[in-house]
Amino acid sequence: MFRHVVMFTWIAGTTEEQKTELVTELSKLPGAIPEIRSYEIGADAGINPGNHEFVVVADFDSADDYIAYRDHPVHRDVIERAIRPIMASRAAVQYELQALGER
Amino acid sequence: MFRHVVMFTWIAGTTEEQKTELVTELSKLPGAIPEIRSYEIGADAGINPGNHEFVVVADFDSADDYIAYRDHPVHRDVIERAIRPIMASRAAVQYELQALGER
Repeated sequence: MFRHVVMFTWIAGTTEEQKTELVTELSKLPGAIPEIRSYEIGADAGINPGNHEFVVVADFDSADDYIAYRDHPVHRDVIERAIRPIMASRAAVQYELQALGER
Repeated sequence: MFRHVVMFTWIAGTTEEQKTELVTELSKLPGAIPEIRSYEIGADAGINPGNHEFVVVADFDSADDYIAYRDHPVHRDVIERAIRPIMASRAAVQYELQALGER
């Protein structure tokens, strides 16, 4: 399994409506992009200071399938309309899953 | 399920030995900290420029269990010995898991 993890911080003045709209838009991606195996999002719980504000964890069968997602026009459209206007910073890693422990 | 995701970049001059040592040290955590439900690590695959270099995705039953992990002396020891000496930057999010799609 190949995993894509990306985190964001939002610019000052980002509204709750914009954050809700982003969740709505991202929710459409698993239905639109068949390469997605698992798609999980989350807003930071506010436990630790200095955290990023939002995360996406997406799993694919292969790096090629991740690239198909990355470059998919429906995904690019969500980035342009719902992410780029509110993005302050971004941090990402893609990697082959390596589980150290599972209970 | 409550998830902790953290990414790192390493300082210039970080050696392969230091990166291997970090993986070795992190591999001990699921056995040492019973609150860990799932523990996955990965080094960036090098597909996209500007990425972070390493990620940990850890799942817990609750935010309290995450905090037990965060503050566990075995974890703090790994941070001090194997992460802090090579860390350039860090990005983290903790959140309640919200799956949008699963195939």
